[in-house]
Amino acid sequence: MEKDFGGFKGILVIGLGLIGGSLALALKEEGFKGKIYGLDLNPERVKTGLKIKVIDEGYTNFKDVPWQNIDLVVISTPVKTFESIAKSIKDFLREDTIVSDVGSVKGGIVLKLYDILKPHLFVGVHPIAGTEKEGIENAKSGLFKNARLILTPVGDSEEKVKKVEKLWKDIGSRTEIMDPHVHDFVFASVSHLPHAVAFALVDSLIELSKQSGIDLFKYPGGGFKDFTRIAASSPVVWKDIFLENKSNVLKTVEVFQQSLNKLKEAIEKEDEERILEILSESREKRLSLD
Amino acid sequence: MEKDFGGFKGILVIGLGLIGGSLALALKEEGFKGKIYGLDLNPERVKTGLKIKVIDEGYTNFKDVPWQNIDLVVISTPVKTFESIAKSIKDFLREDTIVSDVGSVKGGIVLKLYDILKPHLFVGVHPIAGTEKEGIENAKSGLFKNARLILTPVGDSEEKVKKVEKLWKDIGSRTEIMDPHVHDFVFASVSHLPHAVAFALVDSLIELSKQSGIDLFKYPGGGFKDFTRIAASSPVVWKDIFLENKSNVLKTVEVFQQSLNKLKEAIEKEDEERILEILSESREKRLSLD
Repeated sequence: MEKDFGGFKGILVIGLGLIGGSLALALKEEGFKGKIYGLDLNPERVKTGLKIKVIDEGYTNFKDVPWQNIDLVVISTPVKTFESIAKSIKDFLREDTIVSDVGSVKGGIVLKLYDILKPHLFVGVHPIAGTEKEGIENAKSGLFKNARLILTPVGDSEEKVKKVEKLWKDIGSRTEIMDPHVHDFVFASVSHLPHAVAFALVDSLIELSKQSGIDLFKYPGGGFKDFTRIAASSPVVWKDIFLENKSNVLKTVEVFQQSLNKLKEAIEKEDEERILEILSESREKRLSLD
Repeated sequence: MEKDFGGFKGILVIGLGLIGGSLALALKEEGFKGKIYGLDLNPERVKTGLKIKVIDEGYTNFKDVPWQNIDLVVISTPVKTFESIAKSIKDFLREDTIVSDVGSVKGGIVLKLYDILKPHLFVGVHPIAGTEKEGIENAKSGLFKNARLILTPVGDSEEKVKKVEKLWKDIGSRTEIMDPHVHDFVFASVSHLPHAVAFALVDSLIELSKQSGIDLFKYPGGGFKDFTRIAASSPVVWKDIFLENKSNVLKTVEVFQQSLNKLKEAIEKEDEERILEILSESREKRLSLD
């Protein structure tokens, strides 16, 4: 199919960080002919965005944006700010403008934004991509190439959803539609839980170092570095994710606690067969991912 | 200092797996002039070892080994087998032969082997190296280059310990002396605990997939693959490590459980400050490792 990026002509990216910046770069690299507008409360980021040519025009204030040119808004700020941004931009929007996002939590927030913004359509989008690096200066045009991307539409504007999907497909994403609540359960399991565990693991090593008087961080062998790489992720971003997806995060943490207790009890009882069973099943599943 | 590999002339490697094979290869590559003998109960491994020239002579039976030529024995089998191997070889050993190992658990087993083997010296060695790949066919001559290596000697044969240390230094290891019990606490913390957590994490995803009817392993984004890489490690090896180092493993698992509970409670209470504090401390510590 021909690349038309969903037919959009003017895209406003709100929040000039790694994801927003990488989207803008990818569009340019793949031949998007429209204009990319950027908005950030921090003028330094706008300046950087203009300087490294990630955006064509930049603003620090909603009312200065040439709204008549904007047919797609992509919110790429922390999820916590979505509601207030939606309320702030609603009255500026052109009648046919679609609003979307790139947040990692969907569920309730998608329904809330859908309600706030209607009759404008809100289409939830979660690109499964990112690095520990933050900031527009680390933006990469290839970040979404072959990366999975989940759309969580609500309502019945299939045609408009397809436009947003096309945009992402044309920069190389592998798209998939999912219910917003299912999305939050799935990503609590495969992403939020592992992050919580990694943060807790490093925390426990800090505690064990204190208790023993031995600086355990001097011995980062045995997979520890790989394992805890994600504990270097942004505390603010992850605090917000844990709170926005609270019920799923707590639920998956509980199931993990049961799994760990099962293994711990098997070690306590020296139940070799049970330990082998747990380890072998996990190994097999993990190998199936490679 | 001149490379003399501790002055050893005939080294017997018992257990022709990844670590034993890599030691033999490294010695050859670095210019060891003596002979390397290999012993494994599995004749296929001995055949492979001879074929790929990792060992010079191979045996499947203790009594066939030319013991008069052996001045160093390196046990590189699973830790569980150490005691019975020590008892089997003791009467064959030449008076001045030193026995060593490459096991990941020290503590009690080192003291036990010291007692069984005396008047021959036993020197515990733990090279912090390895891959998820097993088997002599995956042996790599560079596996120990610049890798950390812990010696856990007991008794007062400093000169003999220095010979073993020199051997490893001459193939590029960065050596360090540690009390065997301290060793087990340290590696329970930085290696055994992370492995237990990784196995339990994959186990919990199997459970959550069952409960929800969603195959969560279809969504391995968000660091999950890196995080659980070590869950692909050998179940038999890890069962043995968990049991051999049981008390330290259980203790560190408990401290980790407290850390996870602390984070979970902060999320439950939506205590933003507390969450940020835990996440920021962990992030800072983790970043300091890079």
